[in-house]
Amino acid sequence: MTAAAPVPAEARAFQGVIPPLVTPLTADGRLDVPSLGRLIEHHIAGGVDGLFVLGSSGEVAFFEDEMRDEVLRESVRLVGGRVPVLAGIIDTQTRRVLAQLRRAEAIGVAGVVATAPFYAITGPEEIENHFRAIAAATDLALFAYDLPVCVHVKLDPAMLVRLGADGVLTGVKDSSGDDVGFRRLAMMNDAAGAPLTLLTGQETVVDGTYLAGGHGSVPGLGNIDPGGYVRMDRAARAGDIDAVRAEQQRLAALFEIVFQPEGKTGPAAGVGAFKTALYLMGIFSTNTMSSPMTALEGENVQRVRTVLAGLGVELVR
Amino acid sequence: MTAAAPVPAEARAFQGVIPPLVTPLTADGRLDVPSLGRLIEHHIAGGVDGLFVLGSSGEVAFFEDEMRDEVLRESVRLVGGRVPVLAGIIDTQTRRVLAQLRRAEAIGVAGVVATAPFYAITGPEEIENHFRAIAAATDLALFAYDLPVCVHVKLDPAMLVRLGADGVLTGVKDSSGDDVGFRRLAMMNDAAGAPLTLLTGQETVVDGTYLAGGHGSVPGLGNIDPGGYVRMDRAARAGDIDAVRAEQQRLAALFEIVFQPEGKTGPAAGVGAFKTALYLMGIFSTNTMSSPMTALEGENVQRVRTVLAGLGVELVR
Amino acid sequence: MTAAAPVPAEARAFQGVIPPLVTPLTADGRLDVPSLGRLIEHHIAGGVDGLFVLGSSGEVAFFEDEMRDEVLRESVRLVGGRVPVLAGIIDTQTRRVLAQLRRAEAIGVAGVVATAPFYAITGPEEIENHFRAIAAATDLALFAYDLPVCVHVKLDPAMLVRLGADGVLTGVKDSSGDDVGFRRLAMMNDAAGAPLTLLTGQETVVDGTYLAGGHGSVPGLGNIDPGGYVRMDRAARAGDIDAVRAEQQRLAALFEIVFQPEGKTGPAAGVGAFKTALYLMGIFSTNTMSSPMTALEGENVQRVRTVLAGLGVELVR
Amino acid sequence: MTAAAPVPAEARAFQGVIPPLVTPLTADGRLDVPSLGRLIEHHIAGGVDGLFVLGSSGEVAFFEDEMRDEVLRESVRLVGGRVPVLAGIIDTQTRRVLAQLRRAEAIGVAGVVATAPFYAITGPEEIENHFRAIAAATDLALFAYDLPVCVHVKLDPAMLVRLGADGVLTGVKDSSGDDVGFRRLAMMNDAAGAPLTLLTGQETVVDGTYLAGGHGSVPGLGNIDPGGYVRMDRAARAGDIDAVRAEQQRLAALFEIVFQPEGKTGPAAGVGAFKTALYLMGIFSTNTMSSPMTALEGENVQRVRTVLAGLGVELVR
Repeated sequence: MTAAAPVPAEARAFQGVIPPLVTPLTADGRLDVPSLGRLIEHHIAGGVDGLFVLGSSGEVAFFEDEMRDEVLRESVRLVGGRVPVLAGIIDTQTRRVLAQLRRAEAIGVAGVVATAPFYAITGPEEIENHFRAIAAATDLALFAYDLPVCVHVKLDPAMLVRLGADGVLTGVKDSSGDDVGFRRLAMMNDAAGAPLTLLTGQETVVDGTYLAGGHGSVPGLGNIDPGGYVRMDRAARAGDIDAVRAEQQRLAALFEIVFQPEGKTGPAAGVGAFKTALYLMGIFSTNTMSSPMTALEGENVQRVRTVLAGLGVELVR
Repeated sequence: MTAAAPVPAEARAFQGVIPPLVTPLTADGRLDVPSLGRLIEHHIAGGVDGLFVLGSSGEVAFFEDEMRDEVLRESVRLVGGRVPVLAGIIDTQTRRVLAQLRRAEAIGVAGVVATAPFYAITGPEEIENHFRAIAAATDLALFAYDLPVCVHVKLDPAMLVRLGADGVLTGVKDSSGDDVGFRRLAMMNDAAGAPLTLLTGQETVVDGTYLAGGHGSVPGLGNIDPGGYVRMDRAARAGDIDAVRAEQQRLAALFEIVFQPEGKTGPAAGVGAFKTALYLMGIFSTNTMSSPMTALEGENVQRVRTVLAGLGVELVR
Repeated sequence: MTAAAPVPAEARAFQGVIPPLVTPLTADGRLDVPSLGRLIEHHIAGGVDGLFVLGSSGEVAFFEDEMRDEVLRESVRLVGGRVPVLAGIIDTQTRRVLAQLRRAEAIGVAGVVATAPFYAITGPEEIENHFRAIAAATDLALFAYDLPVCVHVKLDPAMLVRLGADGVLTGVKDSSGDDVGFRRLAMMNDAAGAPLTLLTGQETVVDGTYLAGGHGSVPGLGNIDPGGYVRMDRAARAGDIDAVRAEQQRLAALFEIVFQPEGKTGPAAGVGAFKTALYLMGIFSTNTMSSPMTALEGENVQRVRTVLAGLGVELVR
Repeated sequence: MTAAAPVPAEARAFQGVIPPLVTPLTADGRLDVPSLGRLIEHHIAGGVDGLFVLGSSGEVAFFEDEMRDEVLRESVRLVGGRVPVLAGIIDTQTRRVLAQLRRAEAIGVAGVVATAPFYAITGPEEIENHFRAIAAATDLALFAYDLPVCVHVKLDPAMLVRLGADGVLTGVKDSSGDDVGFRRLAMMNDAAGAPLTLLTGQETVVDGTYLAGGHGSVPGLGNIDPGGYVRMDRAARAGDIDAVRAEQQRLAALFEIVFQPEGKTGPAAGVGAFKTALYLMGIFSTNTMSSPMTALEGENVQRVRTVLAGLGVELVR
């Protein structure tokens, strides 16, 4: 890879709205391909700029390698080149991530997304080694995934910009929930000629990241309402901040579905709410979750339904 | 206190820009009254809407009670009623906070700011008891200070809005660095008739909080450039988001001073940078810090100076 | 203060069992002096080697200064010199701790106990400055209180031993719950001539700390059964590890009282259980807790009673 | 699996000393089989009761599946049935752990060791589901690995004992550094008829865990001095606590090697020190670490050497 020249906005391959694809399962835990097809068409109809397969919202950590392959292969097939596909290559440490990289490359994707090492503690030197080793092993676009809630480390903005300037990283998916850090990353990125494409994964504050210099979003909630995020993105590019804010407020209200499940935490609540919404909307055939999680049931489903209905989302169940 | 009716924007007493006053010290650690006077005139000239004395930026945790009294009394005297003064009543648990409240009331302020209990762990029931006990003991406006980096607890938005609706809290100073939480708090507050005045303490993302429904800011960096924050606030009220963003970007660049000190952490770095800037600008006579902290020296001062000079701040030293 | 010479065991002033005194309150939250007298006689009868007043178990963080003074003054009076009294001088930062120190000195104690700075974040340089500043201001014995659950920092063993060798610290009260760290501290202390007296605050693993080189304990549970901790200490000194272990196992079973309260956390559960036990034993007249905590009631009291009764503790209520 | 009856000490299959095998690498990162053979003979000569392959000290998180298989297969072959082999089946969530389980079963081991789910956040219900799902899929002995520093959750002792009583878990490897929790787990286990075999992974406080009711240890430092841990274990069984303590003190001094590396953290420091010691002792041919870590060099190697030499460890380099 070669050092990056300043990147003009029109040349950014992965800007805009790139939702992390939720993975539909059959009642017995296999990939539900028809539901996956419906979800992908829902995204395409919403106008998304790309799709991120095998991210946290896609339950990547819950799938054995064969299942990961199947999800990625079917997603790529069903997308059919209409938008670029990014693949999560999520594993504990460098050699395991490289193994995931080879699998994604074999299937064929436009780019890959990797976190810092996790499980075993590593320091700044090791984190930088890690991203450099991944980039050295591929010609694909590489995004760093900043996700302290899972990885238990916050990526250093100076390191990220250095890796962008060196052509190691194409961009960052920031799900750190640290807006102060995002602003600082954007400022340092701009000062370096903006080598990094900066995407936020925080569904309810995308408007603020546009102000801060972000280039788009990777919203889990985009599985429910891809069109809303696309409209917000287009309004941001047009400088129509009132439209941006109106969409964001509406989407923030919709995001309340993830706070409805009682007695659940983490993806069992958040992804559980997404899957339940997609089930109620008729896009998914079940709201089955991966083991060891269990699906939302009873009152928790009703609470999700109430939020959706209150916002006028069309439900078929 | 009585339950709050919906609060029209024009009636909010504490909206806009209310910087937390940095406390100037003489070389031997006493209050430097002439410097305090210059700083307050700097704020008034910048057009601030209020001043928050004895906050974290004011080194409240470092001052014994007598020193706290002196800082508050002199500040109130020097402000002379031109803007309302809020006082931090920062202490570990309810009875100690009530003792701080009585001191602030005796001096005379427009409102007080209290955190959740700290040092000893408390649960949600105790936190709510705590704020209710403070409100029951005073007629002053009461702000909840959400500052997990010091208090090690994040305030629950549902509790905050409930306390607002019950007339216990006038508002919230949110320094949690959690923009997702701020958006949710603002949304829940709006749904309840907006009983709470919502102020952010995060200097570099004030623009985003205006979009989210915030009513103003309590920026430590406002000690250096109060006029910038006031212009951003007025632009936000006028709906001129381009002006908001331009000010915010400039102020975010200025905020880089807090990242310059090497070998320092916490307020020794952040407040240390503010004091050093005010010293270089000629507003403070020293950059002395409270024990056990030490002032910035040598290369650390030069690095702060370089940031300030690069942004055209007028320096006299 | 002068640098410490190696300290022979017989010369350690504060070794053995020094329980942190729980503070009895009347129903309306004032100090209950008769109950305090009964508790102190209970300790003396148990053979304790000292008493630690105004520690975490004593609700120090919940008491305003006047109340702290009263608790300390009455305790010193009631102890009447029969054992040495240590006083907690717990506050956020150096100047506030020094103010607490002056209050304790005015009342008259044998030593003081201080944590690292809290609320505002400080680094290693500031923490060392802090302890040195306290020692420079007093001739009293000074113990460092390692309590990360409240202070949110772990004291560095190398710093502690250095401060011991320099005559700054008399000892350490380790309530860090980090037995690996305690062993390392003990090993480093021994290598330096054992300048520090090492006391553990972890009620259920005192046996292990004797093996590791500890000199005694500061057990909150010692309020319930001081004699048990004293017998364990004497057995440890006599090398009778079977007796040590038997007492420790019995006391660990007794400690289960702190896990009985449901819906409570922190001292509301732990100190709440101690106070409830002392109430059921007839030593305290109420189990009142400091605001914003509330006392154990109903089923929670019964669950504490069941543990006590099961272990043969004599109850009068 | 069927519910466990109380387990007599003589029937515990995995008690005593079961060190986690460090994995030797060639300079280019492949498994160094001759060094592995020497290390295993070193353990057998020391009298260990079992070996734990593919644990944290074995760099399991750093090896792709093929490498894990090779390490396990060669270890099993070289051990040749002389002691039982446990295999780590470390991966993020249930389905991935089950895939690791099938690999270990295919190679042939006496038992497996699994953590709670990690990366994606899970709650208590999911954690219990997870261990039950693993046990349902195998007849092998299953140990729960409590390792909050990597997994970011602490296992609940009541759940562990319940899983022991239900025949799901054979035992627990506790590397939580929480001695208070270990005592409580041991006490609850004893009250339930001791269905769980309790092993500690904390090298420097094994003596205390024997007092608390532990059945043995899984010490990383056991790679350097297996005989020391075995002697401590036999002394504990014989009730010779003075011998226990003497060995533990010596081993705690030896453990200082892990604190010698400067500029390193996590396994790059700890496992790095173990590998460097084994290299200096002539058991390993290199001290190579897995990517993205780098091996100790220069001064860091000398500092490890100094500790070893000071304790009389025979070195060949």
